[in-house]
Amino acid sequence: MPKADAPRFDEAFRADLRALFRWRRDVRHFRRDPLPEGLLERLLELANLAPSVGLSQPWRFVLVEDPARRAAIRADFARCNAAALAGQAEERAGLYAGLKLAGLEEAPCHLALFAEGDPTQGHGLGRETMPETVAYSAVMALHTLWLAARAEGVGLGWVSILDPAAVRRVLDVPGDWLFIGYLCLGWPEAEEASPELERLGWEKRRPIAERLLRR
Amino acid sequence: MPKADAPRFDEAFRADLRALFRWRRDVRHFRRDPLPEGLLERLLELANLAPSVGLSQPWRFVLVEDPARRAAIRADFARCNAAALAGQAEERAGLYAGLKLAGLEEAPCHLALFAEGDPTQGHGLGRETMPETVAYSAVMALHTLWLAARAEGVGLGWVSILDPAAVRRVLDVPGDWLFIGYLCLGWPEAEEASPELERLGWEKRRPIAERLLRR
Repeated sequence: MPKADAPRFDEAFRADLRALFRWRRDVRHFRRDPLPEGLLERLLELANLAPSVGLSQPWRFVLVEDPARRAAIRADFARCNAAALAGQAEERAGLYAGLKLAGLEEAPCHLALFAEGDPTQGHGLGRETMPETVAYSAVMALHTLWLAARAEGVGLGWVSILDPAAVRRVLDVPGDWLFIGYLCLGWPEAEEASPELERLGWEKRRPIAERLLRR
Repeated sequence: MPKADAPRFDEAFRADLRALFRWRRDVRHFRRDPLPEGLLERLLELANLAPSVGLSQPWRFVLVEDPARRAAIRADFARCNAAALAGQAEERAGLYAGLKLAGLEEAPCHLALFAEGDPTQGHGLGRETMPETVAYSAVMALHTLWLAARAEGVGLGWVSILDPAAVRRVLDVPGDWLFIGYLCLGWPEAEEASPELERLGWEKRRPIAERLLRR
């Protein structure tokens, strides 16, 4: 396609995009009402446009609807979270105990994300020295989903306090699929300008200057 | 912040956002002229807003300006690319040899991205069962940078055909930093509606239906 046909993004769009990046939030408090029919599918169509190594599209989404499987995931989270709490330094344990780290109870929509470990699609291009680019491609699909969801007002929370092997077992997926994350989606109970971890005093965001070297 | 203060994204913004996702492109052909003063810094500020596990911000960007280091990176790419070509199936080797996989020669801006393996920031939250979430956070910073760059018309190409240990050595960064990717940025020589890998017949994008299970 010649240059003239490329979309042109104006400053108003870029300002909204900056607002989306700034305000994206990892949402942990959801209303229980379901998402409108078809919305999740539209969001997943966008996630499917994410970059992937060698155009391998290694992401595999699992929509978790079965109540028994959802309960088993919650139980695994409770187990892993208790272990993580036990591992916290004494002065942080109280703070940790107060964090609401999951939205697994209320969120109407549960999505597990995996990466196929050795996809045939893409013919191996770009991952000989860095096979982890397969997982990284799935992460970019997740991040695309996240931004697309927030632009529709839908909240997303990424739960990583789970045992990957347990999640694979509960969801009955191939043993060579790499578990990337478990996602809760739904309407947020409230919108927040700052991350919950900042508001609760767990951590604060540092400037990019501390993250940039020159060589 | 109450709900009323949250940014509201309208359908026009979402349509542009969909266009950005669809048309993002991994750019491999760059003009040699530099980016305007300050643009890269603004893009990195946005990347710094990416989600990160426990608010750990584990990304470490290295702006590679030294000609000798750039040449060493190009040499490592040439080595790894030759090895990857040798590993291709016979019927694909010709096609592989014709792919222009890097923009390392022309791109005015080179950025290497690492993740700090065990950051103190974030106090370990969310990564006890999945330490790989540290790398995944850096990938989301990269993807944020990518989208922000494309919204400004800046091209980005992700080079993964490199030896991570060699890159660490060439750039003289701590040995425990995890190499995520090497990024070329600059003005694209041309805008393309479809991925180069599709146009050259390497691979084609498959629908999301093939990537979605229900459980």
